[in-house]
Amino acid sequence: MAALRAVVASRLAAVAAFASLSPGSRTPSLCAALHRSAPRPGARVALVSGRACGVTSRLQRSAPLPRSAPAAQVGPFPPGQLPLLSQVLSGCGVFDGTEIHEASAILVHLSRGGAEVQIFAPDVPQMHVIDHTKGQPSEGESRNVLTESARIARGKITDLAKLSAANHDAAIFPGGFGAAKNLSTFAVDGKDCKVNKDVERVLKEFHQAGKPIGLCCIAPVLAAKVLRGVEVTVGHEQEEGGKWPYAGTAEAIKALGAKHCVKGVAEAHVDQKNKVVTTPAFMCETALHHIHDGIGAMVRKVLELSGK
Amino acid sequence: MAALRAVVASRLAAVAAFASLSPGSRTPSLCAALHRSAPRPGARVALVSGRACGVTSRLQRSAPLPRSAPAAQVGPFPPGQLPLLSQVLSGCGVFDGTEIHEASAILVHLSRGGAEVQIFAPDVPQMHVIDHTKGQPSEGESRNVLTESARIARGKITDLAKLSAANHDAAIFPGGFGAAKNLSTFAVDGKDCKVNKDVERVLKEFHQAGKPIGLCCIAPVLAAKVLRGVEVTVGHEQEEGGKWPYAGTAEAIKALGAKHCVKGVAEAHVDQKNKVVTTPAFMCETALHHIHDGIGAMVRKVLELSGK
Repeated sequence: MAALRAVVASRLAAVAAFASLSPGSRTPSLCAALHRSAPRPGARVALVSGRACGVTSRLQRSAPLPRSAPAAQVGPFPPGQLPLLSQVLSGCGVFDGTEIHEASAILVHLSRGGAEVQIFAPDVPQMHVIDHTKGQPSEGESRNVLTESARIARGKITDLAKLSAANHDAAIFPGGFGAAKNLSTFAVDGKDCKVNKDVERVLKEFHQAGKPIGLCCIAPVLAAKVLRGVEVTVGHEQEEGGKWPYAGTAEAIKALGAKHCVKGVAEAHVDQKNKVVTTPAFMCETALHHIHDGIGAMVRKVLELSGK
Repeated sequence: MAALRAVVASRLAAVAAFASLSPGSRTPSLCAALHRSAPRPGARVALVSGRACGVTSRLQRSAPLPRSAPAAQVGPFPPGQLPLLSQVLSGCGVFDGTEIHEASAILVHLSRGGAEVQIFAPDVPQMHVIDHTKGQPSEGESRNVLTESARIARGKITDLAKLSAANHDAAIFPGGFGAAKNLSTFAVDGKDCKVNKDVERVLKEFHQAGKPIGLCCIAPVLAAKVLRGVEVTVGHEQEEGGKWPYAGTAEAIKALGAKHCVKGVAEAHVDQKNKVVTTPAFMCETALHHIHDGIGAMVRKVLELSGK
């Protein structure tokens, strides 16, 4: 029993280390838990580096498990030829940041496709913080786009200023109103919007390098603004009884000088010339798995166009 | 052109309404955007009710689209027999709340299985707020579990105090350290942990009603604490070179009086007697799509056990 207790205590210490409080800020109860036995060396380091309970942001290459959805598989890729993708986030939460389910679907499909991914976000303040229970701003509260995006990235995230098309095979932008509030001013200024300078640089860099760009939901407005004449989809152009509540965004896309292509939620539109791939995602009012599958179609096209 | 401009302006107003600022707090620039044309009636209401850009939290029933992953399909269910599931969240972000990708995967698989889902969280303060870029607490900051969980729920969320087994066919708990910090004190107290009173009530209610309970990652400790002698899995019991960094949690499960069953990340363990279904999820260090698929296995078993 003593041996068991020792094992349990040691393991609980590892769990307690999840709390990861800095020495100066440990609460007495956490201190007590951490002192019941020595924390396992490295446990806290693992958390700090985002490795607690598994890493997602740089997906691992070769777990020898069956791929249960062959339709979503692009690879396997030859050794040394794994594509390295970048995903650009805009916060964490549909109303003031990245749409969480879109970002997660992109990562699931990239993982299934055998790609590695690094996650980026701009180190800027959010336009505002929306209390998602009320749909209204939290007065007096401010949050940082990079810091909040790290919740989706499980801690492994890099300042968007460091993203270069020279180091990555493609860039993918999920939607959520953060794309229209934090990555651009589209939510406020419409066709006269400004785009975050690093977002604009990244879009131009990947485009000029002939590397694919994927976007979904409202994020295609970023490509429409920066890449003159690009073809994108934000879904259908009529509301159709509420199925496409933001159908009017297609007109805004055209006003930005881009071409809008009508697509269903399970489809992706490919602008072959510009290597820009888009899918409607949550622009459509439908069941979540259709959105998940549409994002899968977009990710597979991006991986194909990456040529890896 | 004038007609086009009017259409564009009207649509942009709907997009501008995404900002959803209350009248007293609108910034001048948002006011300008909103006054360029009359906002589309209902647009702001749609946002306030969480319906902007599609709703996920109560998934819709019958979009006539192909199901692209038949293996994940449990339904279709007879009319009036759709299962109504509940998902219980603990915040938004792996280190101080719900693991985002687990919660999203649960919703995707429930959607694919033809179930409806309502999302709940306790209306309590988080244990602390972790800056996910640093893995350390943000000093002086506090957040509410219900409010942050609403980011995953896209606004449609209910106080856990209102969840009753009488109204739902099953309950599912994703992981993330919120389960061990906000739904219980396991991260601090280990086997001596306390469980949030509504979490304990919900687990006992569903168990006593013979309705299934699904849990993943670290969340099985909740069932282990509340349902004496239950069988659960948190994965393997040895670290195996870092593949199972929290393998020691299995010992804590046993110390709580439960039986631990070794399972791989793509598997779910079913305690048939107690109708408790668990899967390791992010307890395993692996690629994200394996975790997604393991959660799919858990969700399908829960739906089967719901008997609908």
